[in-house]
Amino acid sequence: MTDFAATRAMFHIPDGLVYLDGNSLGPLPRHAAERVARTVTDEWGEMLIGGWNGADWMAMPGRIGDRIGRLIGAEAGHVTVGDTLSIKVYQALASALAMRPDRRVILSDTGNFPSDLYIAEGLIAALDRGYELRVVDPERVADAITEEVAVTMLTEVDYRTGRKHDMAALTAMAHEHGALTLWDLAHSAGALPVNLSGCGADFAVGCTYKYLNGGPGSPGFIYVAPAHVDETQPALSGWLGHEKPFDFALNYRPGIGIDRMRVGTPPVLALAALDAALDIWDDVDMDDLRAASLTLTARFMDGVEAACPALTVVTPRDDARGSQVSFRFSEGYAAMQASIAQRVVGDFRAPDIMRYGVTPLYIGTDEIDRAVETLARIVEDRLWDAPEHNRRGAVT
Amino acid sequence: MTDFAATRAMFHIPDGLVYLDGNSLGPLPRHAAERVARTVTDEWGEMLIGGWNGADWMAMPGRIGDRIGRLIGAEAGHVTVGDTLSIKVYQALASALAMRPDRRVILSDTGNFPSDLYIAEGLIAALDRGYELRVVDPERVADAITEEVAVTMLTEVDYRTGRKHDMAALTAMAHEHGALTLWDLAHSAGALPVNLSGCGADFAVGCTYKYLNGGPGSPGFIYVAPAHVDETQPALSGWLGHEKPFDFALNYRPGIGIDRMRVGTPPVLALAALDAALDIWDDVDMDDLRAASLTLTARFMDGVEAACPALTVVTPRDDARGSQVSFRFSEGYAAMQASIAQRVVGDFRAPDIMRYGVTPLYIGTDEIDRAVETLARIVEDRLWDAPEHNRRGAVT
Repeated sequence: MTDFAATRAMFHIPDGLVYLDGNSLGPLPRHAAERVARTVTDEWGEMLIGGWNGADWMAMPGRIGDRIGRLIGAEAGHVTVGDTLSIKVYQALASALAMRPDRRVILSDTGNFPSDLYIAEGLIAALDRGYELRVVDPERVADAITEEVAVTMLTEVDYRTGRKHDMAALTAMAHEHGALTLWDLAHSAGALPVNLSGCGADFAVGCTYKYLNGGPGSPGFIYVAPAHVDETQPALSGWLGHEKPFDFALNYRPGIGIDRMRVGTPPVLALAALDAALDIWDDVDMDDLRAASLTLTARFMDGVEAACPALTVVTPRDDARGSQVSFRFSEGYAAMQASIAQRVVGDFRAPDIMRYGVTPLYIGTDEIDRAVETLARIVEDRLWDAPEHNRRGAVT
Repeated sequence: MTDFAATRAMFHIPDGLVYLDGNSLGPLPRHAAERVARTVTDEWGEMLIGGWNGADWMAMPGRIGDRIGRLIGAEAGHVTVGDTLSIKVYQALASALAMRPDRRVILSDTGNFPSDLYIAEGLIAALDRGYELRVVDPERVADAITEEVAVTMLTEVDYRTGRKHDMAALTAMAHEHGALTLWDLAHSAGALPVNLSGCGADFAVGCTYKYLNGGPGSPGFIYVAPAHVDETQPALSGWLGHEKPFDFALNYRPGIGIDRMRVGTPPVLALAALDAALDIWDDVDMDDLRAASLTLTARFMDGVEAACPALTVVTPRDDARGSQVSFRFSEGYAAMQASIAQRVVGDFRAPDIMRYGVTPLYIGTDEIDRAVETLARIVEDRLWDAPEHNRRGAVT
């Protein structure tokens, strides 16, 4: 049984803060501070260039990729870390399109995070070969998978509502129609059990600064299924994705396996923080996490429904949800600022969504109850009319 | 007059080490350690999501870009920092090709860093519209600029030999033929004065972990000339390059000016280290730096030429060089390992180049003389035959 009191003790949470925004930026794992300091002073400071081999910096993307891989059901050696999620979407999408040369449709939905859609638009414009980005409502995705679709590009958990797609079913459906799948796990990795290999997913990408607590702007990751990795031709063919980077050959040859999805020099300081953050997961059972998450999110929704009739729960009540709860409220922006001023931190997503991340690693029933009470008081007293409540949250 | 004793005191250099590999990875600026620690504990730890606005994380790419811009002669507001150099090459190249739709040649040379060539290959393969990467010898570039050329893609300073292109002349020549220019400043930024605006350069990219001392894997940067920036259509159209990222609109609209070259979430910890490293440049006059660099590199070459007849100087003796010296030596790999074992650190580049970076911020005549003496002793005594000399350096 996962000891959530133990995991909670591994984070630095400022006194009195109820932090329900870990789905945007996870809090600081205490030992990450020490780990980063050691990387700076003992490794960069003392080893200098020798750190690339001596401190194993060069191997970090694959080694850390495997640590994430364990949390998302990836086969060992099939995840690498680096760049940003947007870059990783580009890589995966370009590879997928090249594998389905006779098809011209990228299928996505309006619940996808905009950056994924933007990246697809940019790729389509650059390729200029008549590709179409077809964006449908989330509940219409299954019906929209046809023989025209080269790849489905979906975020498993909707960043606004928390609605969760059925990865296994949609992947199977895509395959029946000869399409490939690209899953964005931004709101899944570290939020709930994911089983990429079990679902037969083709490509997956994600970020590490949300539920994985890697720190502000920590790198993205990419997964390519074993069946495909050796046939993908990287569009972003950088030297560290080369088979032998240190031969400095004039021509590109893709690296072995997932290494070809590396691009440039790895971001060592960021990787050190992320590596430390991942230590916390060593003793976490993902099924325990899921059970705690479902209990806490249900408690949150029940509480708000009972105490705040003006708010509408938009997160699914069945299990088809991620690890967040969202409420629709016409005064949502102002109410969220008031909540933050009361030290209960969630965030706001236009036009009217109040969003709270629920992270059992450091959030329990006390925090949920305090959030509900605070929200009820704010709504009841229209606290946002008070002039001191005018702060901004930021970033997904 | 720049006070190089003062700049030297700002770095941590391990006792007794002669570090001539700052063209691969710059050493640790002492106050960068403290700055990173503060970013981790006081900003990430205490401000959490509020750091994006409260600690100004979101503005770092442009603000730090301007600090670099000052060192490379860029107009204010035309440099942004993020991703890696390879990604920035891709962005610049894709933009340049789109601006010359009737041309099909990317002109580069064999002195370019391989990753730039690889990225061009990958882009060409993805576009699949008959583009050609034409790679000529460095001394043949001028003659090879024709009306076929869409863009010249050149690294100003050759990473192996230190040979420096004439940026002003080649840029003018490219423009006469209707071509655009993309300059890679990996071995220029912080190594010598660069005048992008004076040369009329169109695009430039660079990395920050070499002469700028930003730390292992610190981010790349990109410059787009004022005349072009508003017409470039980003191929890597990520959400932070969007005009209004926090509107979460479903369609991409490029951001204002250089901001459109942003892609994903900025790497805050890496940016904090880089920002601290750039403080050192506030009191450095680039002409003083250049004068010191030319004196030190000449002294190095003179010394080796006198003391080590077996080595051939391959760095130009006139001023057409960067801030490194390179020697050709058939036993170069083994000799460099022996030198590193003697605590004089340079690096080796296949097939036979011994390479030393010369960085006046923390290297003076004493270090140059010790490097020459050490090298002379190693070559004289064939010290590499001793079994304990078997270490590896790494990374450009």
